[in-house]
Amino acid sequence: MGLAEEALEDHRQWQGKLSIEAKMNIADRHDLAIAYTPGVAEPCKVIAKDAQAAYEYTMKGNTVAVVSDGSAVLGLGNIGAAAAIPVMEGKCALFKAFAGVNAFPICLDTQDVDEIVKACVQIAPIFGGINLEDISAPRCFEIEKRLNDILDIPVFHDDQHGTAIVVLSGLINALKLVGKNEKDVKVVINGAGAAGIAITKLLLLYGFANITMCDIAGILSSKTEVINDAQKEMLSYVNLDDVSGTLADALVGADVFVGVSGPNALSAAMVHTMADDAIIFAMANPVPEIDPAEAKAAGARVVGTGRSDFPNQVNNVIAFPGIFKGALESRAERITDAMKLSAARALASLVSDDELSEEFIMPDPFDPRIAECVAKAVSDSVMSERAD
Amino acid sequence: MGLAEEALEDHRQWQGKLSIEAKMNIADRHDLAIAYTPGVAEPCKVIAKDAQAAYEYTMKGNTVAVVSDGSAVLGLGNIGAAAAIPVMEGKCALFKAFAGVNAFPICLDTQDVDEIVKACVQIAPIFGGINLEDISAPRCFEIEKRLNDILDIPVFHDDQHGTAIVVLSGLINALKLVGKNEKDVKVVINGAGAAGIAITKLLLLYGFANITMCDIAGILSSKTEVINDAQKEMLSYVNLDDVSGTLADALVGADVFVGVSGPNALSAAMVHTMADDAIIFAMANPVPEIDPAEAKAAGARVVGTGRSDFPNQVNNVIAFPGIFKGALESRAERITDAMKLSAARALASLVSDDELSEEFIMPDPFDPRIAECVAKAVSDSVMSERAD
Repeated sequence: MGLAEEALEDHRQWQGKLSIEAKMNIADRHDLAIAYTPGVAEPCKVIAKDAQAAYEYTMKGNTVAVVSDGSAVLGLGNIGAAAAIPVMEGKCALFKAFAGVNAFPICLDTQDVDEIVKACVQIAPIFGGINLEDISAPRCFEIEKRLNDILDIPVFHDDQHGTAIVVLSGLINALKLVGKNEKDVKVVINGAGAAGIAITKLLLLYGFANITMCDIAGILSSKTEVINDAQKEMLSYVNLDDVSGTLADALVGADVFVGVSGPNALSAAMVHTMADDAIIFAMANPVPEIDPAEAKAAGARVVGTGRSDFPNQVNNVIAFPGIFKGALESRAERITDAMKLSAARALASLVSDDELSEEFIMPDPFDPRIAECVAKAVSDSVMSERAD
Repeated sequence: MGLAEEALEDHRQWQGKLSIEAKMNIADRHDLAIAYTPGVAEPCKVIAKDAQAAYEYTMKGNTVAVVSDGSAVLGLGNIGAAAAIPVMEGKCALFKAFAGVNAFPICLDTQDVDEIVKACVQIAPIFGGINLEDISAPRCFEIEKRLNDILDIPVFHDDQHGTAIVVLSGLINALKLVGKNEKDVKVVINGAGAAGIAITKLLLLYGFANITMCDIAGILSSKTEVINDAQKEMLSYVNLDDVSGTLADALVGADVFVGVSGPNALSAAMVHTMADDAIIFAMANPVPEIDPAEAKAAGARVVGTGRSDFPNQVNNVIAFPGIFKGALESRAERITDAMKLSAARALASLVSDDELSEEFIMPDPFDPRIAECVAKAVSDSVMSERAD
């Protein structure tokens, strides 16, 4: 049985990957009187006086909504809310398995930005955070921004920021390995969608100074047609010389290639033109921008992909569980840039100098230290921002 | 430590009464590839082709939303969404404890009917049913009706129909005990809110022929002032002689009193004027319409209350878990009148003729047969309606 058949069969047997359990026994009238009426009125009265008490007396403090409208699910595209359920259930299962965080899938039967924002605001009371998932660009930018403006709980679009954090953590270690500095390297990001833009922004924040973004039409410049607002904004920060050209042009002499684009977008010939000790993150799934062996043969020194069957998997699962765990524990109202940078540094720190190699620049997803380490970094960052 | 202190302390320790668990181990890369990417794409593709497949491959088939806007929570009134969380978590815990049904609390930060309807429709894809809870009248009527019109999953306002089903089940047995017939008895319902109206409707459906409704202003009649649409509609079915008067007037010669009103609304003097073998359900909580001992002394033969410390507790927990279990198992699109009547008859049948007594007219909430018995009755009713 192949993986696809096995996955389908397992899903049929599970009939849902999540179970909602009562934490207490309800075996007699006394249990009922404590967990339900009349005893339950007591925490209600406390919260009615002070809404913050919901963090002490309810599941809010450890529960996240995983919200999708099904508009950009995996590589499957706009398959809608119902078809997105298995992915969102899976994401929730990862939240619990990797960080002990309760997560519930909210698959919204609307793709209207205003309605998604309103629905999220209305269901927010029981949630300590919202993880937006598989929502297409550029709608995802506006939804996340508006929700963060309205709500006092963190709203985090994992496809953007989770990916950006993991890429940055990998680059920190890869640069250490090859002995280069973020201020000096030339970086090319291929794919100017939600993930590409978030990666670029986080790298700039970290201190990368020379980034060029490319999309299907080549280098993103003032001459690029059909450019959305989010991409337009990026032109203030990248390609400051406003160069035009193809991806191949951009890559000449580049130190780093980050692909969030499509299968085989990067050729061996292009890799040949890159600088010595080139670093390549070819994250298109399931077929990467370039086969890792081919990239190595063409001169690349460090290669990461989105796949678990090659070394250096760039996998969001090492970031989002710990990030939300830390945000919930510190009752953060936002996931700030400082928290993202802290999370990336924490992830990078989990690979010791002894372990660091071309084949090992980021921790294994099943390294049991990850969630706690990321959570602590995030939480410390919240405390430090509060103290300022 | 009193019950209130104990409940508050327990809620503080629980920090939420629900836990969301992954059903499978996620311990290695293979597990991840099956439960999440890339394997999860397979059930997504199946559901994208046929939305009904969500019942087979996701939690939808065994998951209910417990939705409240916090407008009428217990006896606490309009305390809002956040303060309602402990009650909704408790309700969800009961769904799991009594019927194995997953239930998740949705506490909506809006009390606008249109917005509540829209939010419920938008979050519906992952749910196999919606249990509306603690939403004030008359808004609850419109919300339930509109949702049942729009959605293809059952929407059930437990405060109305759950209560009505349990009251009917108790009356079936109480009438059997006193040897009276539903067609002949005179019934007085005190409290013309959501529960009172739902009880009246279900009793009429069952075959009760003579029902008078009362509210604070006395007997509901064409002369009653400030009457809402739902109450107006009831005048076509109750008090057909259009009598005016007080609750005391209505009770002269009555066989049954059903109180969903307030503390001490029923006096011993009124009970004295009722027919022989009077049946009294005094369900106001925590202080009933009349103390059971006082009612007995005044001549009542069967007395039920909403409290667990008196005999004959009228408790919704014997109805809603099994009703949803049955509705989910049979993939019902509505909770129809036939299903409600079947559930009430099933509950009544759980008290054998040998057991039936003045102190035992309905099953103990912890009777382990209840949920399965109610579920089967509901499911059979669905099948029989489908066959028609």
